[in-house]
Amino acid sequence: MTAIDFIRIEQTLLDALAAAAELTLPLFRTPLSIDNKLESGFDPVTEADKAAETAMREVIAAAFPDHAILGEEWGRTGDGNLSWIIDPVDGTRAFISGAPVWGTLIGFSVDGVAVAGAMAQPFIGETFLAVPGRSTYRRGAVELSNRTSGETDLGQARVFTTTPTLFDTPALASKWEAVAAATRLQRFGMDCYGYAMLAAGHADLVIEPYLNSYDIAALVPIIREAGGAIACWDGSDPTGGGDVVAAATPDLLEAALQLVNRS
Amino acid sequence: MTAIDFIRIEQTLLDALAAAAELTLPLFRTPLSIDNKLESGFDPVTEADKAAETAMREVIAAAFPDHAILGEEWGRTGDGNLSWIIDPVDGTRAFISGAPVWGTLIGFSVDGVAVAGAMAQPFIGETFLAVPGRSTYRRGAVELSNRTSGETDLGQARVFTTTPTLFDTPALASKWEAVAAATRLQRFGMDCYGYAMLAAGHADLVIEPYLNSYDIAALVPIIREAGGAIACWDGSDPTGGGDVVAAATPDLLEAALQLVNRS
Repeated sequence: MTAIDFIRIEQTLLDALAAAAELTLPLFRTPLSIDNKLESGFDPVTEADKAAETAMREVIAAAFPDHAILGEEWGRTGDGNLSWIIDPVDGTRAFISGAPVWGTLIGFSVDGVAVAGAMAQPFIGETFLAVPGRSTYRRGAVELSNRTSGETDLGQARVFTTTPTLFDTPALASKWEAVAAATRLQRFGMDCYGYAMLAAGHADLVIEPYLNSYDIAALVPIIREAGGAIACWDGSDPTGGGDVVAAATPDLLEAALQLVNRS
Repeated sequence: MTAIDFIRIEQTLLDALAAAAELTLPLFRTPLSIDNKLESGFDPVTEADKAAETAMREVIAAAFPDHAILGEEWGRTGDGNLSWIIDPVDGTRAFISGAPVWGTLIGFSVDGVAVAGAMAQPFIGETFLAVPGRSTYRRGAVELSNRTSGETDLGQARVFTTTPTLFDTPALASKWEAVAAATRLQRFGMDCYGYAMLAAGHADLVIEPYLNSYDIAALVPIIREAGGAIACWDGSDPTGGGDVVAAATPDLLEAALQLVNRS
């Protein structure tokens, strides 16, 4: 296999985010055309979402025509062991309600494991980006290394989940209740932004069931390269999605996984 | 009574926000010294919070030495019918977890009813400000009038509450469940930012129990001058705090109050 050129990978991550921002940002905090993707419940998909995925795909295809792409809106294209995983607007509820905690996600995986990725929150002007050996925060002229809090104690942990209603069965609800009872502070409503805050040291634990690959792949290297640990509840790699825990440290991840699996 | 000079009131709102931002912003997303204000549960109070309230009080006292001030940290000082109500960091959980949806709140009330107020989110650089006749959004060179969505239909409403765990008795929980079931979209985790989004037309309903005066007074004129309506669940003015509903329109407020009071 040819060596992977992570300088080009990083540039493609940034170019795809920029292309998406041109289409998402002008529609943020404006009236939007909204689809109901699911017949049950409200799963808004904006025009911005669709157009932005198309634009991101074009950037990737121009740089790496042989790579596979998995996107929230248009599914999987291409094959092989090198794959891009994109979600133009993660946190569509946040997007349509004006909350600046949605993000544009793009991950790059090798043999099914994400090794590079980026998240942008273009309204605030922030980018979290990781390539092997480095997890970085950028906002304007500010550039910082992401570093998790180093927390190892579940009792001191600040835990995020997008909404407790994600835990929608009695079995799941009891797991969330156990986590909430064992931790110091719980916060809702963050979507991808919660994982970025964990990488940057401001949260210690994020736990969510039912994630798709495009919800989490971009965030995996951002967390790991910042010193954090992330896994599915069965301990497997979360790049492909599933029920996921992210933690500031491997020790905290282990404690959280034990709690989740016995509750 | 002397006529109130709202040009000076507005300037004082802005000056107090600027004084607070100098003390809060340098501590946002850094390790903080945290107090446990309540023995039960986790109610973090940062040094930033305390120092910023002191700075805001100095700004107000210099401009209007005869006015009363009510603040989250240092309580009530002074008396009379003209009062300032301040909360330097509303959303301390957001603040300590890196989420840019906390805000600095300052309201001005006459005879117990807030008639001017402002909220700032200094990390993003946004200010929402109202004086009689005007509710305005500012970010850098951008200045917009706040205007609510105009929504009147509960079934179409996007509803915010900081966390469902606020509804902490069976009676309260049944009210939240009724609101969640009757509305189109529910979002958690916004604190004061949710009310600002309502004023700007991005949310239609905010419902929260147990508010203090300093949680809500600043937001009352921001919502009313944008065309929205806000009241306690018994229909009374919410400047003094209590169980509160804010809505995009008077009709939607009425529908929400009827639902809350029969559930």
